[in-house]
Amino acid sequence: MSLESVLSTVEKRVTPDAAERARFEQIAEELRERTRAALAELDVDGDVVLVGSTARGTWLSGDRDIDMFVRLPAELDRTELVQHGLTIGHEVLPEGREEYAEHPYVKGTYEGFDVDLVPCYDVADAEHIQSAVDRTPFHSQYLEENLDDELARDVRFAKRFLKGIGAYGSDLRTRGFSGYLTELLVCEYDGFVPLIEAAAEWQPPVKLDPEDHGQETFDDSLVVIDPTDPERNVAAVLSAENVARFQHYCRELLAEPRVELFFPPERESLSTAELRRHVRERRTTPVAVVFDAPDVVDDQLWPQLHRTLGGVIDGLGDHGFDVFRADVFVEETGAPADEQGTAVLFFELVSPTVPAVSRHVGPPVSVRGHAEGFYEKYAARSQSDGEKSEGGEDGHASNRLYGPFLVENRYIVERPREFTDAGEYLRSEALMEVRTGAQVEDALQGREVHLGDEVEALVETFGRDLAAYFDPRP
Amino acid sequence: MSLESVLSTVEKRVTPDAAERARFEQIAEELRERTRAALAELDVDGDVVLVGSTARGTWLSGDRDIDMFVRLPAELDRTELVQHGLTIGHEVLPEGREEYAEHPYVKGTYEGFDVDLVPCYDVADAEHIQSAVDRTPFHSQYLEENLDDELARDVRFAKRFLKGIGAYGSDLRTRGFSGYLTELLVCEYDGFVPLIEAAAEWQPPVKLDPEDHGQETFDDSLVVIDPTDPERNVAAVLSAENVARFQHYCRELLAEPRVELFFPPERESLSTAELRRHVRERRTTPVAVVFDAPDVVDDQLWPQLHRTLGGVIDGLGDHGFDVFRADVFVEETGAPADEQGTAVLFFELVSPTVPAVSRHVGPPVSVRGHAEGFYEKYAARSQSDGEKSEGGEDGHASNRLYGPFLVENRYIVERPREFTDAGEYLRSEALMEVRTGAQVEDALQGREVHLGDEVEALVETFGRDLAAYFDPRP
Repeated sequence: MSLESVLSTVEKRVTPDAAERARFEQIAEELRERTRAALAELDVDGDVVLVGSTARGTWLSGDRDIDMFVRLPAELDRTELVQHGLTIGHEVLPEGREEYAEHPYVKGTYEGFDVDLVPCYDVADAEHIQSAVDRTPFHSQYLEENLDDELARDVRFAKRFLKGIGAYGSDLRTRGFSGYLTELLVCEYDGFVPLIEAAAEWQPPVKLDPEDHGQETFDDSLVVIDPTDPERNVAAVLSAENVARFQHYCRELLAEPRVELFFPPERESLSTAELRRHVRERRTTPVAVVFDAPDVVDDQLWPQLHRTLGGVIDGLGDHGFDVFRADVFVEETGAPADEQGTAVLFFELVSPTVPAVSRHVGPPVSVRGHAEGFYEKYAARSQSDGEKSEGGEDGHASNRLYGPFLVENRYIVERPREFTDAGEYLRSEALMEVRTGAQVEDALQGREVHLGDEVEALVETFGRDLAAYFDPRP
Repeated sequence: MSLESVLSTVEKRVTPDAAERARFEQIAEELRERTRAALAELDVDGDVVLVGSTARGTWLSGDRDIDMFVRLPAELDRTELVQHGLTIGHEVLPEGREEYAEHPYVKGTYEGFDVDLVPCYDVADAEHIQSAVDRTPFHSQYLEENLDDELARDVRFAKRFLKGIGAYGSDLRTRGFSGYLTELLVCEYDGFVPLIEAAAEWQPPVKLDPEDHGQETFDDSLVVIDPTDPERNVAAVLSAENVARFQHYCRELLAEPRVELFFPPERESLSTAELRRHVRERRTTPVAVVFDAPDVVDDQLWPQLHRTLGGVIDGLGDHGFDVFRADVFVEETGAPADEQGTAVLFFELVSPTVPAVSRHVGPPVSVRGHAEGFYEKYAARSQSDGEKSEGGEDGHASNRLYGPFLVENRYIVERPREFTDAGEYLRSEALMEVRTGAQVEDALQGREVHLGDEVEALVETFGRDLAAYFDPRP
């Protein structure tokens, strides 16, 4: 199949038809009217700006998101801005509820559309913003000026492609390409095909500056200077892994064009038998730390979970347990954004047990003060341990210290380990010393630990996560 | 106990009495006479020099070693020198046999003494030597000029102390202090007590140059420039560990003087029950590679064994098996120097098994040529493995490849391991790829591998080595 015919198939599926467009225009107009009425009722100066992909005609057929910004006078203080914003939001979206980004705003549904109604300051240009959200109307304006119909179509290709490969979204779970970044890239390379041809050859760090006004330097793999703000990298949240993922799939698409890259089949859930087979064949020891995820929004939850995963891997390592691979799963509940389900830290261990002793390297013998202190401390323990140990029970782990002895010019001791069993460590209070995240730390107190065959209990809820784990792809 | 009274006790045990001295003088004179007669019979110019501790009166009571050098004209070529040396040697020691150091010589017993009869060149000074052994008469001469009776007594303290702590002998098993080095140190510090007081404070590298004529720089922990040869470090073979050992026990002797440091009790052999207890308490997996040591002298055998031990540790590591601690044992047979008994490479493993997959990190995705080559190679294998694996037997290790997938900006695969069981690897032909030593490599072909409880078979022959292994001391 040629790339041309693949894109033609994709185009049919992602382009909203006339009816969908008309329906959107009608709803958007109604919402604008309701918002203006609410402003009038409040007796506040202000105007309404439609932003986001629906505003620019770059939405994918079937998307039902409307982002509406209410620009209020720059003289208002933050409390007033938020207060007016919420009042208007509740007026326009009677069943809406408050969410929190830069500041609180109202989110709700209206005639089947998901609507965000966000208050911002009416400032002269993007360099004089008072709140981060003030930038958004300028982004919208920039893109409206730079996107023609053909580029809008190509933005849809790019978005659908990024969704297909799992790299779309600037949320802190995905750390992928935001809508704005995607649109800028399509503009900058003047189309979807030139973009993927260029990306296939990228040598990160890649720096783009559409308005040629950037001054600062950034450490990121991809730097796209915001056309409306020279000090901002639009791709700041994008991970190096998603840059690599995009490059990989751009090459795939060019080498072997196929619609599946835009619309991949959903993964099938892993069965218990398959899980068992993977574990037996890999000869690793799976272990899961399971707890109720704290009720915070994803952008707060995911960084904490990744931090905690790293902390537990380090904690296991410090106690001698090598982690082969690990991942985080969170139950999809379909509940509101700040109501979370069960979270799982999933590890494969090289071995579930370690020796009862660990090697501890002391100072060089020649450093007399330290060396004597070290030797005396441990020689005394070794002596008394050796005596105690004579009466030790068979099969019991050692509490005995071996040494000090010499390796090259240093003293060495073999000290008893605190834990010889990974499950024991993960269940212990000692686990709470690892780095976590404020809310995850509390939640982790109520953890359950499943080791070995016990992880089969995860299949019901996390079968799809486990399928992805055991069939990892770029 | 004071250091003084400890030394007084030691002195009584190490000083040869008048009868022992007289006996030695008589035997030495007989040997000299026999050697002169042999020289006369051969009609070769030459003289006989007694060297070593017996010559200098620094031997320990009970020692029965006589080193006799036959100095032959410097004009002889090497073949003649050796030929004359062997002829004289066999004449003087009719039951002697040939050994090989710098060149062949005759070793035998005479009236209960162990006699080495070594031919060397008669050169003007140590800087004009033609063979390494030519140096020895100059060493002897230097020490005869510098050692009085009191220093000779202190040399005996130092030798006995170094023997007691296991650091005496410049053979390549011990890599300790040679007799000559010990004598030079006692001279340089003007006595045994000043020597140990200084050594307790040494900050290696320590450099001594009795004749103040050294030019070269050396990397060793202890450098003692040969008074008869400015280009030679007398302590070149001494290991950093034995320097540290000497420092440690010097401090011990000063802090708590005791005769046991000079005459330590022999270790008791480890019982099977004790071995079992150590293994259970330590929760490591012992494994022994047992083979007939090749019939070469110790100075050839031991470096090869240590090289092989390091090679096998690295080989195990490369296959994922972590070694906790390891050592080499060789059976003491009491047979001639080049007839060796059984050798053991003894390892404690962290775990006897490893996962069936190992992580392999590929190139960054951005390096297009390498990245595409890597991805295509492994993606094809992964595909076909996944298909094969469907029919795999339960419990079987994987031959399946997982990935490629992404971690940060790189491709990663999890490849099947060749061995998941350490015993299997150690018994396999793959072990022969590790670095060994020419003769040990051949011997290793006939190895047996004992894993876990099977190592109990070692107790009978290697009980004392195992006792030292499981009660390691400086």
